[in-house]
Amino acid sequence: MRIDIISVLPELMESPFKTSILKRAMDKGLAEVHFHHLRDWAINKHRQVDDEPYGGGAGMVMMVEPLDRCISELKSHRDYDEVIYLTPDGVTLNQKIANTLSIKNNLIFLCGHYKGIDQRVRELHITREISIGDYVLTGGELAACVLADSVIRLIPGVLNDEQSALTDSFQDDLLSPPIYTRPESYKGLEVPKVLLSGNFAQIEEWRHDEAVRITREKRPDLL
Amino acid sequence: MRIDIISVLPELMESPFKTSILKRAMDKGLAEVHFHHLRDWAINKHRQVDDEPYGGGAGMVMMVEPLDRCISELKSHRDYDEVIYLTPDGVTLNQKIANTLSIKNNLIFLCGHYKGIDQRVRELHITREISIGDYVLTGGELAACVLADSVIRLIPGVLNDEQSALTDSFQDDLLSPPIYTRPESYKGLEVPKVLLSGNFAQIEEWRHDEAVRITREKRPDLL
Repeated sequence: MRIDIISVLPELMESPFKTSILKRAMDKGLAEVHFHHLRDWAINKHRQVDDEPYGGGAGMVMMVEPLDRCISELKSHRDYDEVIYLTPDGVTLNQKIANTLSIKNNLIFLCGHYKGIDQRVRELHITREISIGDYVLTGGELAACVLADSVIRLIPGVLNDEQSALTDSFQDDLLSPPIYTRPESYKGLEVPKVLLSGNFAQIEEWRHDEAVRITREKRPDLL
Repeated sequence: MRIDIISVLPELMESPFKTSILKRAMDKGLAEVHFHHLRDWAINKHRQVDDEPYGGGAGMVMMVEPLDRCISELKSHRDYDEVIYLTPDGVTLNQKIANTLSIKNNLIFLCGHYKGIDQRVRELHITREISIGDYVLTGGELAACVLADSVIRLIPGVLNDEQSALTDSFQDDLLSPPIYTRPESYKGLEVPKVLLSGNFAQIEEWRHDEAVRITREKRPDLL
């Protein structure tokens, strides 16, 4: 998978892609991520990429021309499955969308910043708008990191232990059951006896029941 | 505001806190963020902080003792308003939670990693569990960055233009209306006439109508 990320602040995304799963995926050649500084497509020598909104109001708007030039140039080199705009008014990311995107070949992520992008960029290029949740961030950069992480970890071979991804929360629409590790007793708090029983059928049943109980308690909307 | 972030991978969070709003808030003395490497509270010379789950299964569990020691030491120095565990089975973050947290003084963010934390850490210390959305990430580190960004930008004085935060998506339960900047015409796509009219009452009305229309179309659940 190849991901091209367009941003006015690519340096924000440096460390997440240099550590953990994202680095491992890139080292293994399973994913490549390219950053594009929008200012390289600016329209003048001031490297301007944003301007005031028509009709007045607070905040700056990312201009149509630099974004159109940048995306058009990327598209001239290869076919993209999706041009994704990270924005709080997009469709809310969930595990199903992450699964869908994890089998694509070429993706563009456009990080919104300031007040957002000129509407005409959406009309010209954007195929999918994604929000990582109902809250406002300073820019789409962290959202792009989150989306990349959620997608790239699903590419076969990226995780060491493939089973681990399949038993995560949301893959079966249930939250995870409680988990414990050594010691058996800590400050008077004990590990549930069933987990020490060695009876794996019983353990599986307990875990399923706990997952259902916790989901019902915390997130009944998922059931 | 002071935020203490506990993690097995603090280096992942380096660049987000060195750029943009988060850096500005720290430079202005409006927020301070301290990273704590969990391995500094490991229980043995191998710096072990995770172990296999009781009852078997894939993935490692973050041990209770290093986390208890780390959090207890932090608590011995000051009172914390909340000890927040970033986990996919927490309460889903929204703008209201971000608003609530933005007026706190001292917060601990605990980044889940691997399969999660020993249940007894939740019982001993955690006051609030937050998920940034219904998808799985490699660890809680990006979630901690997202939560910090969503909260810190709301602290008065952090944003240059306070009005800007108030007109963001979600602050009034509506998505944002379309925005445009120069030029008026681009590849045959025109800026809506009303935005060029100079009639601010009309512009406000158009923006409100568009915000309602877009919210109804994309996110009827918000209305």
